[in-house]
Amino acid sequence: MEIGMVGLGRMGANMARRLRRGGHRVVGFDPVEAARQAAAVDGLETVDALAGLAAALAPPRVLWLMVPAGAVDATLEALLPLLGQGDMVVDGGNSHYRDSQRRAAHCQDLGVHFLDCGTSGGVWGLEAGYSLMVGGDADAVARLRPLLETLAPAPDRGWGHVGPSGAGHFAKMVHNGIEYGMMQAYAEGFALMARKQELGLDLAQVARIWQHGSVVRSWLLDLAADALADNPGLEGIAPYVADSGEGRWTVAEAIDLDVPAPVITASLMERLRSRERNSFTDRLLAALRHRFGGHGIARAS
Amino acid sequence: MEIGMVGLGRMGANMARRLRRGGHRVVGFDPVEAARQAAAVDGLETVDALAGLAAALAPPRVLWLMVPAGAVDATLEALLPLLGQGDMVVDGGNSHYRDSQRRAAHCQDLGVHFLDCGTSGGVWGLEAGYSLMVGGDADAVARLRPLLETLAPAPDRGWGHVGPSGAGHFAKMVHNGIEYGMMQAYAEGFALMARKQELGLDLAQVARIWQHGSVVRSWLLDLAADALADNPGLEGIAPYVADSGEGRWTVAEAIDLDVPAPVITASLMERLRSRERNSFTDRLLAALRHRFGGHGIARAS
Amino acid sequence: MEIGMVGLGRMGANMARRLRRGGHRVVGFDPVEAARQAAAVDGLETVDALAGLAAALAPPRVLWLMVPAGAVDATLEALLPLLGQGDMVVDGGNSHYRDSQRRAAHCQDLGVHFLDCGTSGGVWGLEAGYSLMVGGDADAVARLRPLLETLAPAPDRGWGHVGPSGAGHFAKMVHNGIEYGMMQAYAEGFALMARKQELGLDLAQVARIWQHGSVVRSWLLDLAADALADNPGLEGIAPYVADSGEGRWTVAEAIDLDVPAPVITASLMERLRSRERNSFTDRLLAALRHRFGGHGIARAS
Amino acid sequence: MEIGMVGLGRMGANMARRLRRGGHRVVGFDPVEAARQAAAVDGLETVDALAGLAAALAPPRVLWLMVPAGAVDATLEALLPLLGQGDMVVDGGNSHYRDSQRRAAHCQDLGVHFLDCGTSGGVWGLEAGYSLMVGGDADAVARLRPLLETLAPAPDRGWGHVGPSGAGHFAKMVHNGIEYGMMQAYAEGFALMARKQELGLDLAQVARIWQHGSVVRSWLLDLAADALADNPGLEGIAPYVADSGEGRWTVAEAIDLDVPAPVITASLMERLRSRERNSFTDRLLAALRHRFGGHGIARAS
Repeated sequence: MEIGMVGLGRMGANMARRLRRGGHRVVGFDPVEAARQAAAVDGLETVDALAGLAAALAPPRVLWLMVPAGAVDATLEALLPLLGQGDMVVDGGNSHYRDSQRRAAHCQDLGVHFLDCGTSGGVWGLEAGYSLMVGGDADAVARLRPLLETLAPAPDRGWGHVGPSGAGHFAKMVHNGIEYGMMQAYAEGFALMARKQELGLDLAQVARIWQHGSVVRSWLLDLAADALADNPGLEGIAPYVADSGEGRWTVAEAIDLDVPAPVITASLMERLRSRERNSFTDRLLAALRHRFGGHGIARAS
Repeated sequence: MEIGMVGLGRMGANMARRLRRGGHRVVGFDPVEAARQAAAVDGLETVDALAGLAAALAPPRVLWLMVPAGAVDATLEALLPLLGQGDMVVDGGNSHYRDSQRRAAHCQDLGVHFLDCGTSGGVWGLEAGYSLMVGGDADAVARLRPLLETLAPAPDRGWGHVGPSGAGHFAKMVHNGIEYGMMQAYAEGFALMARKQELGLDLAQVARIWQHGSVVRSWLLDLAADALADNPGLEGIAPYVADSGEGRWTVAEAIDLDVPAPVITASLMERLRSRERNSFTDRLLAALRHRFGGHGIARAS
Repeated sequence: MEIGMVGLGRMGANMARRLRRGGHRVVGFDPVEAARQAAAVDGLETVDALAGLAAALAPPRVLWLMVPAGAVDATLEALLPLLGQGDMVVDGGNSHYRDSQRRAAHCQDLGVHFLDCGTSGGVWGLEAGYSLMVGGDADAVARLRPLLETLAPAPDRGWGHVGPSGAGHFAKMVHNGIEYGMMQAYAEGFALMARKQELGLDLAQVARIWQHGSVVRSWLLDLAADALADNPGLEGIAPYVADSGEGRWTVAEAIDLDVPAPVITASLMERLRSRERNSFTDRLLAALRHRFGGHGIARAS
Repeated sequence: MEIGMVGLGRMGANMARRLRRGGHRVVGFDPVEAARQAAAVDGLETVDALAGLAAALAPPRVLWLMVPAGAVDATLEALLPLLGQGDMVVDGGNSHYRDSQRRAAHCQDLGVHFLDCGTSGGVWGLEAGYSLMVGGDADAVARLRPLLETLAPAPDRGWGHVGPSGAGHFAKMVHNGIEYGMMQAYAEGFALMARKQELGLDLAQVARIWQHGSVVRSWLLDLAADALADNPGLEGIAPYVADSGEGRWTVAEAIDLDVPAPVITASLMERLRSRERNSFTDRLLAALRHRFGGHGIARAS
């Protein structure tokens, strides 16, 4: 098949590469020249404007967006005037599912198909394939099938049409919420073993043992085993954990739907906590302890 | 009445003072000379050995222990040989209730009464009176009554015989667990208002407003209002929150009794968290994010 | 002064009563006839339409809204055409602070003053006075002062102008978040004492003791003491905890501002949890345990 | 090699079977006749007393205990008099690591080797192999190696000597704590998707998609996919989640070592919560809301 890839960052460039390996024709665009050049060096056919992208593809076109969530609306605004009846836009990034529902309705008014595709796999997707959850019309998904079969780990697994517009990004949002909880559980466990110095546990060894036959074996554990083998003391890494938004959305959605999600929520709180450098909360607690009990206060250094 | 006070630290010295003001004869002992001298300056009759304390009081004696939880067993071991049938020991400190149950049984074998008295009020107890939860034999509590009526905020309130041996310290343990949760709730709320800079909230003013008529009015809020008035930005205070053990016991007891206590537990976790300076957990999370997503890692500075 | 009270439910009717006791003239309106009649029986001057309310008051008017958060926009839409330059609307209910900011801007365009007043005190406010956090223009607040002095517990305390539009409802939102955390902390503590049956603790007695001199003394504790005295086993009460929205807003705001609020959040989660009757989460956990360990599953009865 | 298996329950019988398939001679004992008979039907050589077990094996013997944590001390007490210098006992169950340290010291005094072996894999271990973390003397572990190579998924993976006595059970304890957190994260995520009915997500399909290429792929996800495929609504399963103790130990250890473990702890709290049928906590919250706000209370049905 033929596809236009909008966004040639880490994810988009790799997906373009995997599609080309699968025999598809991919034309790529990125507003950043360096990203275009990097992809071109790699053999990808690139254009330097969205208009060129539309011109390079034969209708009905398939455009795959792999841009930051905050850039989707602007990209669509620039792109839609270039498209025609029957063309299709796939948002493969981490958009909020409600935005995707809104965008799908808008595209439908213009006769353009819109699919939301939750994409998991990170930098490993190029070789291992991506996990893809697609929301939108069944007919549009059917048309996209050859591309999905190539992007997924295997033609018959790792991808699926999960529901109407928004369903793909909703599932991806929940996926990331679960990811937060799993990561936090592993991290707490390894931190506990690291603290128990008298037993001299080799964390990478324990992770390797668990990779085979244990209840907690997983791909994240594989990564942890590698990380701990390469850098057992995790030296040089700041205790600062960023987040890319889906965890927040998951918590908001859980509260909105009255679904208790204490562990996913606690995982998010821990990430926020990791970025506090002079917690007002903790200082007020210290001040209160001092006030009622005369307990000493550690002076800020 | 007549009472021997063992331990003339912040709590013990103040309690001795309040008892003397109430017309009781108090003889004090502390192994630290400076503590004895400080109390003596204040007019308290002191002795420089436990033996002197026993000698200074007419049987049947009442000895009130106000020593660190870790020092109770050693103190008792030294004290019990000096006591006789019908004497009474009151542990007014923060001992674990199971230790108090064990000590009560041991004292009973020797014919000595033992009461566990949970004591709340901190440095404010001298003027405002203490809240006292007493566990042990009803007869012994009845004998102690004049002292309890003096120590409490008023003769008929703020103290009570709450159950058999251990009940006093159990109630005090739970009191402190609740205290952790309340403090954390206030601290989170004020931190949220502090962060919302665009509204320019004056935290001390808000606390003062809440002191009158609001649902969250409390003594801890009074302290928070003072702390925020004196130091609105909580400058010079390190974000480091100590704990004195009862919170840990409360969580352990909750788990032991299958009682979910998520908020008290989370409060304890936050205190542990406040003392982490280079969290292994957070560093492993950052390493994992980097591994799967190619996300940047903040380098430790 | 003269004031129109819109909404004569539990809160509005009591506030009207307190204002009249303070010597103010109050005209009341509620769309529900029964509410109007109940208030009229009590001596309140009522009208049966918003138009009547506007007519009954001499400009510049003060209208106090005490209606559900969901009804504020519709009420304003009906009310504003009846008002003129210099009139003032106070929203004393539990609106979201962002809605209040939007409404204040809209009213300002029409020359009408708008204040957001967070109001705490519940059904006890009639006798004890209300805690009032007011956001908006200083001039408008100054005009409202005589009414605020009457509604508050005392003229010089329990109320304040805390900031620009939205600040009042923001402070009230945080107040309620703190309230969730405090309530949950107490409830967990008392549940722990209730479960420790061997000590036979009388929960009402313990609460009474803590009311005097303890660190955890508070108004909520006073209520708990009464509740436990009246119904020690809390018989006949379903373990179902509703929420009125501010807790959700507090959590959303905390996440939005990157402020960790684990205890307030956990308190909200517990409320959601209390309403689960056949938790999917728990059933999946049971199913998973069965799958990997052959552990038995309790069959739904 | 030759080994005596003490305990022929679900785990012990399967491990005996896997060892026999691997060419080892296994003699089994279980105090329950039905368990012995079930194993005998399967071809296992069994004896009806520990004495018989000792007699059936040539010194130096290897005895593998696969009994409930609460039965280990009694089993050892009966077994040790039957053993001699150089014999070895392996505790493959879920004992507390401190008990294992104590038992190892006791056995050493008698000239008997003692190893603690954390064993993961559940009912799937028979076919897939077990994950084995062994604590104790290196020489004893070396002697046990042929058996470990057979029990593990492959001779060179899934097992290891992780440290001195106690290290094996410590690692297994942490493994189970992590398992709690992971399970809870998945369960919350799937519950959220189940509640979002308008999207009509097929949970088993989503789980299947995630199994390939996603960040959250894991063995527990495989089990969840099967469970949701077999019973999409999880009908007939009570929302009641048991625990076998290691989660409690993990939390206690984390607190003891000052390691914050909010997610593992929250997972445990949720399990306790799942067993509450008439939560005192929730009833007190409902009572308090009624007291201060006049909010309705749901009457217990």
